[in-house]
Amino acid sequence: MVATGLLDPAVERFLVETADARLADYLEFLRIPSVGGMPVHSGDTRACAEWVAARLRTAGLKTVEISETARHPVVYAEWLEAPGAPTVIAYAHYDVQPVDPLELWVRPPFEPRVEGGRVYARGAEDDKAQLHMHIAALEALLATRGRLPLNVKYIFEGEEESGSEHLDAWLEAHRDRLGADLAVVSDGSFFEGNIPAVGYALRGLVYMEIRVSGPAIDLHSGVYGGTVENPANALARIIASFHDDEHRVAVAGFYDDVLPLSEAERDALARLPFDAEAYRRQTGVPALVGENGYPLLEQRWTRPTLDVNGIWGGWTGDGPKTIIPAWAAAKVSCRLVPNQDPVRIFGLVRDHVAAVTPAGVRSEVKLINIGRPAITPIDHPAAREAFAALRETFGREPVFIREGGSVPVAASFQSILGLPIVLLGFGPADGQAHAPNEWMDLANYEGGIRAIVRYWERLAERGEELRRG
Amino acid sequence: MVATGLLDPAVERFLVETADARLADYLEFLRIPSVGGMPVHSGDTRACAEWVAARLRTAGLKTVEISETARHPVVYAEWLEAPGAPTVIAYAHYDVQPVDPLELWVRPPFEPRVEGGRVYARGAEDDKAQLHMHIAALEALLATRGRLPLNVKYIFEGEEESGSEHLDAWLEAHRDRLGADLAVVSDGSFFEGNIPAVGYALRGLVYMEIRVSGPAIDLHSGVYGGTVENPANALARIIASFHDDEHRVAVAGFYDDVLPLSEAERDALARLPFDAEAYRRQTGVPALVGENGYPLLEQRWTRPTLDVNGIWGGWTGDGPKTIIPAWAAAKVSCRLVPNQDPVRIFGLVRDHVAAVTPAGVRSEVKLINIGRPAITPIDHPAAREAFAALRETFGREPVFIREGGSVPVAASFQSILGLPIVLLGFGPADGQAHAPNEWMDLANYEGGIRAIVRYWERLAERGEELRRG
Repeated sequence: MVATGLLDPAVERFLVETADARLADYLEFLRIPSVGGMPVHSGDTRACAEWVAARLRTAGLKTVEISETARHPVVYAEWLEAPGAPTVIAYAHYDVQPVDPLELWVRPPFEPRVEGGRVYARGAEDDKAQLHMHIAALEALLATRGRLPLNVKYIFEGEEESGSEHLDAWLEAHRDRLGADLAVVSDGSFFEGNIPAVGYALRGLVYMEIRVSGPAIDLHSGVYGGTVENPANALARIIASFHDDEHRVAVAGFYDDVLPLSEAERDALARLPFDAEAYRRQTGVPALVGENGYPLLEQRWTRPTLDVNGIWGGWTGDGPKTIIPAWAAAKVSCRLVPNQDPVRIFGLVRDHVAAVTPAGVRSEVKLINIGRPAITPIDHPAAREAFAALRETFGREPVFIREGGSVPVAASFQSILGLPIVLLGFGPADGQAHAPNEWMDLANYEGGIRAIVRYWERLAERGEELRRG
Repeated sequence: MVATGLLDPAVERFLVETADARLADYLEFLRIPSVGGMPVHSGDTRACAEWVAARLRTAGLKTVEISETARHPVVYAEWLEAPGAPTVIAYAHYDVQPVDPLELWVRPPFEPRVEGGRVYARGAEDDKAQLHMHIAALEALLATRGRLPLNVKYIFEGEEESGSEHLDAWLEAHRDRLGADLAVVSDGSFFEGNIPAVGYALRGLVYMEIRVSGPAIDLHSGVYGGTVENPANALARIIASFHDDEHRVAVAGFYDDVLPLSEAERDALARLPFDAEAYRRQTGVPALVGENGYPLLEQRWTRPTLDVNGIWGGWTGDGPKTIIPAWAAAKVSCRLVPNQDPVRIFGLVRDHVAAVTPAGVRSEVKLINIGRPAITPIDHPAAREAFAALRETFGREPVFIREGGSVPVAASFQSILGLPIVLLGFGPADGQAHAPNEWMDLANYEGGIRAIVRYWERLAERGEELRRG
């Protein structure tokens, strides 16, 4: 066990005294069915934004805005009365996932129940708990001291569960107002076994579509077979050429810009408790397979990939149809790691496809979309202080983790606003986010509020260093 | 020009004198919209069978039957009064293709018109002309001599355009009655430039479905990518492994049973006038590609192939979806040549797939259907006499050709009844069978009747030899 540092006794007393009211408030928040992705819940989602704005005002903020986007608004609020201290952006979202399949819920998803130290409801973890914890930390500091130790700009979004479609445009439009030293994204979970975790990197993405065409129309495979290249066979050859026998991506230059792991980071990853067999069972695959020479967590978080996401062409109905299809296509995407540039990787893949396309067919590669990878080094003060705040609060050694997926908003904070990012999520590792009977651990919730208070205090002490990055 | 032998003057006179009536009768046959594949035309198709049966009776046959199948009947007729002479089965079909797209027809498809020595109508070539020519040849011989030079069993089918679905069962059921020395299939065309052609071989088929599965459900490609084998990538690798760089099928044992071409046959194929560039333009491919070391017509007719007919898996809708699909599948078929056994080839492909399936996924290969290849050697008397009959009739050197596709009925005559087969078709090479404005060349039609008469006479003279095979 790690010794926990003492939280400001005034803040601690306030949090203890207001715990019941806070829980009631959190449950009220959970009763709003803010399923932002479903038009039938548009009114609820708007009402939820208004609830959040009102709550920020009662917590003591004066600058609170419901800021419109093309769909659901961003609730923006700020407290900027600490001149000279660092400025952080705190991000969470107030929309939630749909509830289907409803029949698997033990209780209705928008009627939260508290049981065995857990809160069950849609959004209990993802992400209403975490948004509410930021408001609670803010309220505790303003109530006890009348101020925060640093400047905070709150960005609470309503479209995260439908892809943050309008957030980039909103960030671009409000860039002048969003100057900061750091973005803290609270929309994630602890590591396996409920170990407090600091997320410091996430993979990017380049998504493409490959189309191979040959004959003008589907040809009779008896009359023409053996004299023309088959576009579906050719597409298969192209896809097969993407990897070598070591499960490495065989596109020339693909790994050129991959940032090597530091020894410290590799050691930290190697020390993470991870049950590979449980992970395998969860996926249902007969065996785990990844790039040779890398441990599983490195494969998953720190190595780029190339996967077919979909493939189609020719006759796919019942029974036989003896054609040589006129064309075949595949959706293909690469997960990218720092410092790979999605646009450069697209060019490399496009050139590779052109080089390996067999005579007798034509190919084209279209760019569908990109997401940049992001990383904050684990020795960056923003990462180190998050780690320390978690350790002090939860009394156990936290871990540094990465995300294998993209977190578009985190990447946008880095690419649009140029900020280091820290992923500071407080959900339980097995909290069923997106699934029926989603739940939040109340110890994570209460601890998280205290960890945020400590993190703000620690960041304030490292102001100079933080600004130097 | 090749000298034409004299047709029996009595038969020739009869054919000249009855030409107008015969044309009128042929046009009447074309007016019956016997689109067997469309339920709305079931009554027309039945009426057409009755028309054919009646016509065989007026031609002089006593044994004429409308023999039921599970759908459209076979019109069966026989003349067996030449004891000691060989017996041939003559096959044609009375059903026709659908007429869509109707708007491209210059005149309604079931209102035949005669213009410039051509008859335009649906079925004008395929296959009513050829069925009618067999009746006309029969009628001319019976009218002038009262007998045929050999025994003939006519099998006129009503489901050829919908896959001859019930013919195999019919052949099995009537096997005892269908003893013969040879089957003559008249449902094809002359070669390019309207050169009379004898078809003596056709490719077979084995049609399979391959399914590769991995995760229990579609996985998030960010969270899991890099640690599990992707079933769509794996399927692509399996398909790519089916061919080597010489465009040969790389399945072990695949070519073991391929009957080598004789020198004579190879020379004959090499001498065929064939415009590869026109063929390429017709397909629309940028370049023709086939098994290295073989001329195009050998690739097309005499070499086995492996083609993907369809492929599907994962996300195929609009836009990006970042999944590792749980499974991917492909329909794959091989065109086979004598003496490859479709069932053995299926086993080889299945074993190959099992051997190359990467760790981390499972694969299965299902057999969908098979069709056996068929061949009658070009020095077989049935092939040589067909060649001679065409040469005498049309006054030019015919050619021997193969079919790249399967002709299920021909293969069935060989596999079910154990007969040598000759494909003796009289359509013009560019007669638009299956397309709008289908047409028949009246010179091919009239010549074909005479060629059939000559062929029967020649076969009768070679009775002993024919029965020895």
